Amino acid sequence: MSGPQIGIGIVGYGMMGKAHAYGYAVAPLMRKLPYRPQVRVISGRDATRVAAAAAAYGIQSWVADWGELVRRPDVDVVDICTPPGTHAEIATAAAAAGKAVICEKPLAVSYAQAASVRDAVERAHVLNAVGFNYRRLPAVSLMKRMIDEGAVGKVRLVRGSWLSDEFVDPTIPFDWRFDRSMGGSTIADLGSHLIDMATWMAGPVDEVSGQSETFVRERSRREVTVDEASSALVRFASGARGVFEMARTAVRRPCDLTLEVNGDRGTLVFEYARLNELLYGDGQDRADLYGMRRIRAEHSSHPYAKDWWPIGQGVGYGSSFVNHLGDLLERWPEGPWDPGFAQGAAVQAVCEAIERSAAERRWVQVAEVTAAASPVRP
Amino acid sequence: MSGPQIGIGIVGYGMMGKAHAYGYAVAPLMRKLPYRPQVRVISGRDATRVAAAAAAYGIQSWVADWGELVRRPDVDVVDICTPPGTHAEIATAAAAAGKAVICEKPLAVSYAQAASVRDAVERAHVLNAVGFNYRRLPAVSLMKRMIDEGAVGKVRLVRGSWLSDEFVDPTIPFDWRFDRSMGGSTIADLGSHLIDMATWMAGPVDEVSGQSETFVRERSRREVTVDEASSALVRFASGARGVFEMARTAVRRPCDLTLEVNGDRGTLVFEYARLNELLYGDGQDRADLYGMRRIRAEHSSHPYAKDWWPIGQGVGYGSSFVNHLGDLLERWPEGPWDPGFAQGAAVQAVCEAIERSAAERRWVQVAEVTAAASPVRP
Amino acid sequence: MSGPQIGIGIVGYGMMGKAHAYGYAVAPLMRKLPYRPQVRVISGRDATRVAAAAAAYGIQSWVADWGELVRRPDVDVVDICTPPGTHAEIATAAAAAGKAVICEKPLAVSYAQAASVRDAVERAHVLNAVGFNYRRLPAVSLMKRMIDEGAVGKVRLVRGSWLSDEFVDPTIPFDWRFDRSMGGSTIADLGSHLIDMATWMAGPVDEVSGQSETFVRERSRREVTVDEASSALVRFASGARGVFEMARTAVRRPCDLTLEVNGDRGTLVFEYARLNELLYGDGQDRADLYGMRRIRAEHSSHPYAKDWWPIGQGVGYGSSFVNHLGDLLERWPEGPWDPGFAQGAAVQAVCEAIERSAAERRWVQVAEVTAAASPVRP
Amino acid sequence: MSGPQIGIGIVGYGMMGKAHAYGYAVAPLMRKLPYRPQVRVISGRDATRVAAAAAAYGIQSWVADWGELVRRPDVDVVDICTPPGTHAEIATAAAAAGKAVICEKPLAVSYAQAASVRDAVERAHVLNAVGFNYRRLPAVSLMKRMIDEGAVGKVRLVRGSWLSDEFVDPTIPFDWRFDRSMGGSTIADLGSHLIDMATWMAGPVDEVSGQSETFVRERSRREVTVDEASSALVRFASGARGVFEMARTAVRRPCDLTLEVNGDRGTLVFEYARLNELLYGDGQDRADLYGMRRIRAEHSSHPYAKDWWPIGQGVGYGSSFVNHLGDLLERWPEGPWDPGFAQGAAVQAVCEAIERSAAERRWVQVAEVTAAASPVRP
Repeated sequence: MSGPQIGIGIVGYGMMGKAHAYGYAVAPLMRKLPYRPQVRVISGRDATRVAAAAAAYGIQSWVADWGELVRRPDVDVVDICTPPGTHAEIATAAAAAGKAVICEKPLAVSYAQAASVRDAVERAHVLNAVGFNYRRLPAVSLMKRMIDEGAVGKVRLVRGSWLSDEFVDPTIPFDWRFDRSMGGSTIADLGSHLIDMATWMAGPVDEVSGQSETFVRERSRREVTVDEASSALVRFASGARGVFEMARTAVRRPCDLTLEVNGDRGTLVFEYARLNELLYGDGQDRADLYGMRRIRAEHSSHPYAKDWWPIGQGVGYGSSFVNHLGDLLERWPEGPWDPGFAQGAAVQAVCEAIERSAAERRWVQVAEVTAAASPVRP
Repeated sequence: MSGPQIGIGIVGYGMMGKAHAYGYAVAPLMRKLPYRPQVRVISGRDATRVAAAAAAYGIQSWVADWGELVRRPDVDVVDICTPPGTHAEIATAAAAAGKAVICEKPLAVSYAQAASVRDAVERAHVLNAVGFNYRRLPAVSLMKRMIDEGAVGKVRLVRGSWLSDEFVDPTIPFDWRFDRSMGGSTIADLGSHLIDMATWMAGPVDEVSGQSETFVRERSRREVTVDEASSALVRFASGARGVFEMARTAVRRPCDLTLEVNGDRGTLVFEYARLNELLYGDGQDRADLYGMRRIRAEHSSHPYAKDWWPIGQGVGYGSSFVNHLGDLLERWPEGPWDPGFAQGAAVQAVCEAIERSAAERRWVQVAEVTAAASPVRP
Repeated sequence: MSGPQIGIGIVGYGMMGKAHAYGYAVAPLMRKLPYRPQVRVISGRDATRVAAAAAAYGIQSWVADWGELVRRPDVDVVDICTPPGTHAEIATAAAAAGKAVICEKPLAVSYAQAASVRDAVERAHVLNAVGFNYRRLPAVSLMKRMIDEGAVGKVRLVRGSWLSDEFVDPTIPFDWRFDRSMGGSTIADLGSHLIDMATWMAGPVDEVSGQSETFVRERSRREVTVDEASSALVRFASGARGVFEMARTAVRRPCDLTLEVNGDRGTLVFEYARLNELLYGDGQDRADLYGMRRIRAEHSSHPYAKDWWPIGQGVGYGSSFVNHLGDLLERWPEGPWDPGFAQGAAVQAVCEAIERSAAERRWVQVAEVTAAASPVRP
Repeated sequence: MSGPQIGIGIVGYGMMGKAHAYGYAVAPLMRKLPYRPQVRVISGRDATRVAAAAAAYGIQSWVADWGELVRRPDVDVVDICTPPGTHAEIATAAAAAGKAVICEKPLAVSYAQAASVRDAVERAHVLNAVGFNYRRLPAVSLMKRMIDEGAVGKVRLVRGSWLSDEFVDPTIPFDWRFDRSMGGSTIADLGSHLIDMATWMAGPVDEVSGQSETFVRERSRREVTVDEASSALVRFASGARGVFEMARTAVRRPCDLTLEVNGDRGTLVFEYARLNELLYGDGQDRADLYGMRRIRAEHSSHPYAKDWWPIGQGVGYGSSFVNHLGDLLERWPEGPWDPGFAQGAAVQAVCEAIERSAAERRWVQVAEVTAAASPVRP
């Protein structure tokens, strides 16, 4: 356990803080890392709870003020696991302090904010990464690799949906998730993962037509300012077409994400409820075996498979954090880190285009969003 | 086999003609019908092939001219199984001859045409039905019944997709399916079923935003004038939102239809590849059994189940024709028949709104389509 | 509808009588048959019910006495759809009358009885077939074809189970199904299909070790004399090993049949609840696509596929009767018919070996059963 | 990270050593433990490899001699992750040294050996646990809880199978897994988990009838002395019946475990390839919802669910080690630990009864095995 270390500070002790702590604990077990991650401090406004979290996660110290965490000399990486509305300020401060920054998604609550923090890390020349951890699920990484290798040919159609029932119950009291300025939106919360994966695989989005609805418009006598369910038609720069849907109001759908790509040669389908599998229909396969292969995405030739268990045993959600943080740690300190804040901002631009399209009831080009925000850049 | 009979004439001997012949042959076996259907004649332009079809389907006579079929006094019902572009003319003639008319979907290749033929049958006071046979799959009928009984509560979200690979191969020569004036469109061919089922369950559609794409734009040196893949955002009159997708260019997706409805109480999901099942998530079910039920839609209490086999044995595509035609025959000669041409035209209006929206890149109200066409009505 | 005909008489008007009537009605629609089947008479002891069945199934006449049916000169084929305990007597009489015989499975209620009726049809030189219709499900036929073509290599392991809940409810009154002398046994009722399919694919069974249990031992104050649930270890003559289970006491398992074969090269899995699919794992497939293909067993290259609907539409239970009877009718009047009573008797021998093994708590060779019965043969 | 600690020594650095190291690393993150586990030493005969493993797993020290590990005063718990043939000697030595012992399954390579080591830990009054980690998969724990709560009623039928393709390739060179004296058998390797789960849920097994086969009988010119595929009929003391199958020769079946229980009220089905789900058919459920529920075994009311991620995210194989070791650590130092070596020996007795039954071709009572071994007990 000797050898070089990298000091981590985690901002936020909620579910995401726990997931990242898990990632740092497990990554060294699963792969050879040049620097061993050491989570040296965690921050949170509620001293009692953050202290309990520090004890639970095996973290040596805690602070109530994230500014203190950012300034600590033994912290090399600031890992931001707080609600979206706080990301930009913390990340900007961390960059200013010369720290590498890992930030949970969505990067911000507006494109302007996202672009600003992207610019901040780029100006500061610090390594930066955004928490698009679903990319690092083995089957999703395999899907990307297969697309790059031509398994589906030229991509024509992309469809993705993310259904949860998080907001179904109308008696859930108002909290930050229902507040547009803090929680962002369903488009950004669920959709940012979809858009990240889709653009990773099929290239940038040119324009969108969106719709949004909020069925329970008031909670705890406060107005709900986020969408509960949104969907969008998408045109990619490549000419491919897409459909996305994200809803937090689908009963008995706990977290059901699906992503399908149809190309001129083949089809690939990922369903999160079967996260160790990938369906592949190859148009050049023998016609008398017509159908799709259910690939068990755990073969030793598959991404991340050798790090984990023998084939057939299966990994869970946690593996995405281990693989993601492992990839970042492996490249410390030279980098590059991928996806970085540039992708975080690019995804945010698509989210904002959908939101604007839904509000204005028209097709919106992503370039409209980025152009409007560009004066902000120095 | 004595007793009252009803004389049927089938126009068209292709796959649909065969499917309807199957329906007439089997319906009397499965249910008590007041009048026994007798397919007395089938028509088709190619004498050799229609003669062979007549022999194969056990039909006593054939004619090459559908006008002759329509005029035969022993034909009570004209059942139209030809390409969409021919429906209106044949149905109008049949109505004029005082025949009941059953017409395959889509009813026509434009809303104006559909409205015109709807008006024709209504003026002639003849029974009329459109071939939305998927409604009569037991699991789809059960889905409708459960929604009516409140199983999902108030409908919020509807999503439907229909994926096939019919057009994937770019070497398929040009035929009527690629010709907008004859085959209609992918929106109408696949989408009309989706829209019929969705509006049956969730009420009328108010407006849509669509997109369409044709990836293989030329076949046999002729321009392909139909869409290969389309999708649409949908707002229902009730305030519910929907997303539809229909594509004939999804590799190794032979005919994969799914329809999901989320209400404020529950979720229902139908997948055609599992056509004897219906998934149901009940938000009021015990939380410790969180998940969905996979209903085997063959219980004796379910629609059409008693007509068929013991539970667990399963029916196929053919059952939808037997159930559909059985429902119509059971109501002969008083009627009513449902869904009739009015629904056929209403569905066509939504299809056309999607098509127009895709062309004009804007939200289109279904009322725009129907209003524009209304002067045509007498 | 002119042309040569073949006269059919169906003995029994229950579910099986209906299924066969369906088969005769549909087979001519789906395939070119040299002789058109004409069901000319149906028999049943209850005159009211058999008359109603005749009307429903579109059969021209009915009789209460099956002997009369057997003797009718316009009956070429006697199709026996009565309870197992009556098969031998009817089939023997039909053979004696020079009729071809189709008999539902199991062929008899003992091997001696089965052997005797097999000998009767062979002596009479009449065509004979036993109702192993599951073979004619397209996916099962495809499975057999693939095994013959080497898709799994040399068969090593076979596993089959058939789970239903027919007997779960202890308040179901006593009827013939609970009476060993009439209904046979669960081993024979469910297991005969499994054993037929398994031996068709993997060759004859040499010896078995079985167990049986009856959980509800009395109904309507009468002793239940059949097993509710049985299972068996199996050694095939080839050296392959098998496990079979058949139970009518598995709650919410309506008719869940699975059959899997593992060879030294590959694996094939059929699940009846997905009857239009076949899973195939090919050990020589690319390792980086590790997993099984879900073959949609409806491709035009697949058995029976061209007779039915376009790929993806799906057939149901009924298709097995259409395909089975179609195969027999196609070979009329020369034959051969396959599987015939010889296979019916061979399957019965395995069933009886399992029954004896369970009773005597020891491995039983199938040859013990057939040898013991052989003096009966003339 | 201060507070009381418990010192762990892991014997063996292979896959199981890694899995246990993972468990110790993660357990404190997921649950409140009175003593924090500290893996202080790992042992392995190959110094280079054990040193590398120690570095990878973050373990402070390593030794080549397990005896040294057992004697270290800072080791409270000896955790044995070596091949089965070595378990007894190491566990006996650990017990003699007064250490608590955790031992991977199967406990030994014979019942006599298992009974002897069970007796050793009982005589030494040390805490003891056997690695039946599959019990601690959330869905399996839920299955057990539901059975205890009456969800299936009185258990009638149990079926379990475990299919892998580990031994399919005939060119795999001989190693300890093919050597009966070191690796045990397929019955014990795969079957011990099945038997543990089944007896946990349905009570003890009375007698068995088994069969075994080895298809590739020689590797590297050495005789393979283990079974590749075995199956067994089972009678439980309660009167329930079971069927088990375990095979390492099923192509493209990486690790496909299923366990189903049918009672007089309901059915529960677990499939490892869907490890976050549990299927439940309740015979008292509404008949018009006939079918099974697919329970997402991650609801906050389910076993271990609160320790992990939000519902729908899913855990993998690793979670079973975390939950298992967490349960043991939580009860340190008072205990009790469950399942202990007594269950390890009881499972071994069933394995040995199956093996003996297969060899002697007769039903074997488990009591025969335990009685024969009892003179060995002091």
